[in-house]
Amino acid sequence: MDTKERYQILFNKINQYSSGDIGITRVAYTNEEQACTQAFMRMCKAEGLDIRMDECGNVIARREGRFNDLPPILMGSHLDTVYQAGKYDGVVGVTAALEVVKRLNEKGIVTDHPIEVISFACEESARFGVSTLGSKAMVGLFDKDKVRYLKDRNGVTLEEALSLYALEIDSVENASRKNEKIKAFFELHVEQGPVLENANKKIGIVTGIAAPVRYFIKIQGTPSHSGTTPMNMRSDALLGASEIALELEKIAKEEQVYGTVATVGVLTIQAGAMNVVPGEVEIKVDIRSTSIESRQRVVDHLHQVIEFVGETRQLKILSKELASEEPVLLSEDIINEAESICSNKDIPYNVMVSGAGHDAMNMVKLCPTGLIFVPSVKGLSHHPEEFTEIDDIMLGIDVLEELIIHYSKKESIIS
Amino acid sequence: MDTKERYQILFNKINQYSSGDIGITRVAYTNEEQACTQAFMRMCKAEGLDIRMDECGNVIARREGRFNDLPPILMGSHLDTVYQAGKYDGVVGVTAALEVVKRLNEKGIVTDHPIEVISFACEESARFGVSTLGSKAMVGLFDKDKVRYLKDRNGVTLEEALSLYALEIDSVENASRKNEKIKAFFELHVEQGPVLENANKKIGIVTGIAAPVRYFIKIQGTPSHSGTTPMNMRSDALLGASEIALELEKIAKEEQVYGTVATVGVLTIQAGAMNVVPGEVEIKVDIRSTSIESRQRVVDHLHQVIEFVGETRQLKILSKELASEEPVLLSEDIINEAESICSNKDIPYNVMVSGAGHDAMNMVKLCPTGLIFVPSVKGLSHHPEEFTEIDDIMLGIDVLEELIIHYSKKESIIS
Repeated sequence: MDTKERYQILFNKINQYSSGDIGITRVAYTNEEQACTQAFMRMCKAEGLDIRMDECGNVIARREGRFNDLPPILMGSHLDTVYQAGKYDGVVGVTAALEVVKRLNEKGIVTDHPIEVISFACEESARFGVSTLGSKAMVGLFDKDKVRYLKDRNGVTLEEALSLYALEIDSVENASRKNEKIKAFFELHVEQGPVLENANKKIGIVTGIAAPVRYFIKIQGTPSHSGTTPMNMRSDALLGASEIALELEKIAKEEQVYGTVATVGVLTIQAGAMNVVPGEVEIKVDIRSTSIESRQRVVDHLHQVIEFVGETRQLKILSKELASEEPVLLSEDIINEAESICSNKDIPYNVMVSGAGHDAMNMVKLCPTGLIFVPSVKGLSHHPEEFTEIDDIMLGIDVLEELIIHYSKKESIIS
Repeated sequence: MDTKERYQILFNKINQYSSGDIGITRVAYTNEEQACTQAFMRMCKAEGLDIRMDECGNVIARREGRFNDLPPILMGSHLDTVYQAGKYDGVVGVTAALEVVKRLNEKGIVTDHPIEVISFACEESARFGVSTLGSKAMVGLFDKDKVRYLKDRNGVTLEEALSLYALEIDSVENASRKNEKIKAFFELHVEQGPVLENANKKIGIVTGIAAPVRYFIKIQGTPSHSGTTPMNMRSDALLGASEIALELEKIAKEEQVYGTVATVGVLTIQAGAMNVVPGEVEIKVDIRSTSIESRQRVVDHLHQVIEFVGETRQLKILSKELASEEPVLLSEDIINEAESICSNKDIPYNVMVSGAGHDAMNMVKLCPTGLIFVPSVKGLSHHPEEFTEIDDIMLGIDVLEELIIHYSKKESIIS
């Protein structure tokens, strides 16, 4: 059995755990996710790893090294999914980490540094509206009072969900490893976007993770009869929203070299009807970049557009910042090393940014961190038809293996 | 007691009949509407009129003339309302008609032609989704098989609602007066728009009623991750919809001299979320004009825009015509007569079109028809705060009275 066949079996085993008929549903802290995580722990144990689950539900499977007082090298991702998800998001990174261990075992390689396979708990925000809970806990950023009473769609709180998982929300802080020395963290993940496929590249070496700034914008005009209100006597809130959306696209396109993106993903007309000129419209805006400066230029322009549209269309426009997170830059040493690995192996790669959040963005607070992408067909993500070619995943695992072998040597240095 | 005080009492009596706490709710064929209609019939009887209710629930209250074989002159509007309506829409026209009768009685005027006060049934589409049922029945356009099973929000069919009103849907066709000779119909109504108020005019003399052509448009792009999809790799359905809405505004403004209006009143993003580039958007478009040519230019332009936006944004756009009704032109003789009445009385007036539908638009099929507007404050309509100054209503009644006196003379001619 070759490694590809072996990996495919592992990948399929993980995706047996799901509820519902459409795609994969293995939401954080549910029975399906727990069963999957337990199965994964047994698989790790079978490879000789020391397994434990921390106070947040993160799986830590350790392979001792030649010098066990050296800081460990970590690799992994997550096994939880959104509702009606695909099979790849998160799973690829966790299974790849175990496959790397299998290769090391097969080759009889003893690394200087210990190595840990990590499966982070509750990466997706699908259940409780907050993402990357497991990695937040690991880096000491779990704020129990902020999340304790968050409810899922059935009214179950996070505290209750943890309790059913035999975890105690008041102990989750003990999962923090911020006082421990960790050499590096590596995450392999599907791109969830179309960049690699369109550029015909097989590997994405991620330099930074864009964090969103988000706005809620309420546009108030005057509802009026669509038949009796002449065009020049209208204050149409929808037309104001349309102008804002199109201007936002224009300025984001001008900032494209910085990987900046801006989206109106939600638009609601209050009491919309075919014979009523829209009187009130709400939109939600998401702006991301790894460049804070570029992102700020888009935000500034958005505010100018709001003012201009408000004046010219006689609309009252209120905007409220919903979230503003800091972009994260990843280890340059690791980026360089990954580039030379790809070059040596003749793997076509892109150096790129990630527009989506990942556990890696928390792990940078603990240690130098690397994030490697494999292509997503058609860029589809959080969708039953999410797909990555098995051969592309194998290339990703090859790169991950090389990174682990390189950095698990005592003499390798990450600044 | 002056006529204004007398009228105010009548107006208030009608608006006693309502259900709910917000505004007036006196929906067609409900108990409230029936009670109101019965009360109105008693008031008509008290003025010496012969009252009857036809097979559709229309009230017909007749004042005999000097020559009762001459065709009658009709005037009226409707007493039913939308949910949470104002007090003026429809009520003004019905109560004005009765007030005109009171004035004729008071002055001892015997007209040559008989005169009929009409209160049309079910003018509003609020309950069953179809409008002007009563006037449709009177002109012979009631299609029982098309409407029999239409349901209200409680699941009650039109057939059942009529039955509770002691009416039989299979007899409604007998309400038709299309084989009868009728000399003219006059309707006084609130404008439901801001034109008169903005122009500081007291009377609107309506030349035509714009009928809508309506489209359902489905815009299909590609849903993708708002963080990972670069701006130049998106097929954003919402941005396509925004361009269509703004272009529609632009072309409608160019056609404004024809009283043409175009509105996107409904816009829905399928599975809209803050972190998803909109993949599918549905909009509903309403285009109205009294000029078929102008309306057609807007429709043609809409189709060009759809094609252009589809190509440039790589969107698949489907459009479906939901309705296309013919605009209606009102009697030029009556328009001229109304103008000379306003001039003689020094009442500032506008000659204008109606963007909203009225019973008058059906009545043109039976006889020469006139429609007179009084101003709506802020153009508010179908809203608890709908308002018209009582003094403005009195001016409207003055004009209506003059029209009735003029046309009820045997020698008056309408071509």
